[in-house]
Amino acid sequence: MRIDGERLNARIQSLATIGQTTSGGVTRPSLSAEYLEAQDQVIEWMRQAGLETKIDAVGNIVGRRSGSESQAGAIMVGSHIDTVIDGGAFDGAVGVLAGIEVADALSQHSFELKRPLEVVAFIEEESTRWGMSLMGSQGMLGTLAHDDIFGRKDDNGVTIADALRSLGLDPERYRDATRSPRDLDYYLELHIEQGAVLDSLGMPLGVVTGIAAPIFMALTLEGKADHAGATPMHLRKDALIGAAELILAARRIAEEASSTSVATVGRCEVTPGATNVIPGRVRMSFDVRDMDSDTREGMLERLKGVVLEVAGKYSLRYEMSELARGGPVVLPQHMIDTVARCLERLGLPVFHLPSGASHDAQVMAQIADAAMIFVRSRDGVSHSPGEFSAAEDITAGAKVLLQTVLALDATERPTMR
Amino acid sequence: MRIDGERLNARIQSLATIGQTTSGGVTRPSLSAEYLEAQDQVIEWMRQAGLETKIDAVGNIVGRRSGSESQAGAIMVGSHIDTVIDGGAFDGAVGVLAGIEVADALSQHSFELKRPLEVVAFIEEESTRWGMSLMGSQGMLGTLAHDDIFGRKDDNGVTIADALRSLGLDPERYRDATRSPRDLDYYLELHIEQGAVLDSLGMPLGVVTGIAAPIFMALTLEGKADHAGATPMHLRKDALIGAAELILAARRIAEEASSTSVATVGRCEVTPGATNVIPGRVRMSFDVRDMDSDTREGMLERLKGVVLEVAGKYSLRYEMSELARGGPVVLPQHMIDTVARCLERLGLPVFHLPSGASHDAQVMAQIADAAMIFVRSRDGVSHSPGEFSAAEDITAGAKVLLQTVLALDATERPTMR
Repeated sequence: MRIDGERLNARIQSLATIGQTTSGGVTRPSLSAEYLEAQDQVIEWMRQAGLETKIDAVGNIVGRRSGSESQAGAIMVGSHIDTVIDGGAFDGAVGVLAGIEVADALSQHSFELKRPLEVVAFIEEESTRWGMSLMGSQGMLGTLAHDDIFGRKDDNGVTIADALRSLGLDPERYRDATRSPRDLDYYLELHIEQGAVLDSLGMPLGVVTGIAAPIFMALTLEGKADHAGATPMHLRKDALIGAAELILAARRIAEEASSTSVATVGRCEVTPGATNVIPGRVRMSFDVRDMDSDTREGMLERLKGVVLEVAGKYSLRYEMSELARGGPVVLPQHMIDTVARCLERLGLPVFHLPSGASHDAQVMAQIADAAMIFVRSRDGVSHSPGEFSAAEDITAGAKVLLQTVLALDATERPTMR
Repeated sequence: MRIDGERLNARIQSLATIGQTTSGGVTRPSLSAEYLEAQDQVIEWMRQAGLETKIDAVGNIVGRRSGSESQAGAIMVGSHIDTVIDGGAFDGAVGVLAGIEVADALSQHSFELKRPLEVVAFIEEESTRWGMSLMGSQGMLGTLAHDDIFGRKDDNGVTIADALRSLGLDPERYRDATRSPRDLDYYLELHIEQGAVLDSLGMPLGVVTGIAAPIFMALTLEGKADHAGATPMHLRKDALIGAAELILAARRIAEEASSTSVATVGRCEVTPGATNVIPGRVRMSFDVRDMDSDTREGMLERLKGVVLEVAGKYSLRYEMSELARGGPVVLPQHMIDTVARCLERLGLPVFHLPSGASHDAQVMAQIADAAMIFVRSRDGVSHSPGEFSAAEDITAGAKVLLQTVLALDATERPTMR
């Protein structure tokens, strides 16, 4: 059985021409005209690979081949084909097309798995059209709300329900997309890293250990906007001095928490913002991530402690609030080990890393034993026309995906979650 | 001879009704209708105090009484009556009206000084109308450019030349305002502190040791705007981390330079400024002040050193430029001592402090031996309707001003500058 790397990479390039932008990027929001053209293409490739295709009740593209054991739960291989505005050719597409390539390999060898194999392209993984990331996988998990489907509108006032209707689907039946853990054993996702870890170490592929969902915090520091000349250093209530200590503290806290924790101050707005006036107010954000919930909570507690300390030290008032909180996921060790063994068997170096970005795998991990494989991203660039992964890395990733499917198919049914 | 504190404070309140805003502040830009009404009032009070009045060639209001020695250089007492938009009742007005009160006291006592006494209200001390601070005193120094008079326009396109013409002056003759050091011995200015030093220490008045003009710097730090989740801490080029170190370094440098040095980062603009994106670029400002030129230069050099160090440490590119540089002034020690002795003689506590804000005194110090006396500002508030100085503090300030005029008049002609 072999992966046809040339075909796989040609398909990635071909798909990238649908929704191509003048800057060489790809714009293909969920269910846009370009998306629907790409969907038709994906469905055609799925059929050529011997998969039976359908669009599920929330718009996910699903291709399926049966297994030899009628009671066995499926192995699902998935990712997405929607993109951000002027995004890249690889984010999402790599995983979907590599999944089809795995089906192709099995089909050309007439290889029968015990378990059904499903290849999925999730709808609205990016939040480009309806501001709701991971929508398709949440539809399979069954956690979408009626309001998400009927209330959320795109920039033209079109709801998800409207868009599903135009596909010939009844949006009221969106819960039909829900998948039971009983008929789904494993979920696998091959995806570009979107960070520079693998590239900086010269690693073609990585085994993902978990997915580090963020907590977003907003903080306002209030001091006093005084004259920069007439106010000596010891009489200042400079909100930006407090902010600067917190920016550095957030970095220190992340560095000390674990080698994979991250914390970022991405917003820092200074009022009044004049050269000769001491900043009276700073509004700032914190993005705190770890795949381990307790580690992340510990970081947040330390950060809150430093906020209290800094506010006291510089006589600042403050207001802190939590804006959003995603559920981090530690992927099952046996899944990580299985992927690692497949890499070894293929003579590839094994490197473990967490995902700092969100992926459908973090949702699917709640109904299936999940694993993720990262493909090296050049310079860590993503969500941009400059996004690039080398053809040989992608081919290697698809080979690992195939080996992992075969290895998982050979296992017994996983224990109940 | 006595200062009539009640009259002085009543005049300050009365002048504040001209240009009064709905918020209780004062808006009186140079040569506006309100300013001209205030000018008429000031001229009337000057005449009542026995001063001969004129408007000089750049629009300064000058009241003068002769001295008994025909060759003696004048003692000038001055400040300004223009205000910022919605400014306070005390900034500038205190010094002009206290100067008139000194003339009144001399006049009512028919006291003859050796030297001529001049009371001046400088035009455009604030940069409210033409964006040019200290214009009137610069006119006396003779450093105004033809372009300042004929090129600078207010928000309605009116030049300084136009406004001077409407006063009946020939703007081409603006150099006639220039004063020679030969006929000007001393310059004295009573002004509110506009900072909170005196208030925090319970001091009604302060002897100003020098005027700490600023150097304004602009710095752009360039890093890389990466995904806040997918980019581990050690692979980041976070421009805001660099900025945070510099914000704290600027504070440390000022604290270590001298007890009167100040440094401020008032602007800090982060790009792209999204919660989940590592800041790729920060544009920030530095305001570095000391009344001692060498101390200020030393601070700037240390700051540049830290910028270099921080840029290297976090792999940031940077661009730094100087936007403006004012000339700091250390006031003559014999002037400081004379004021201090007058405070002591009046039973008032003596406290020395530098001025962090700019004043006409820093310009006049270049053609006369200058001194400044600060009046306590409640909470350090200024340039706002909340600006407040107590009547008894202002009265005490006027008494010190009178004593200082008498003390200086008793001196020999100061040595050539």
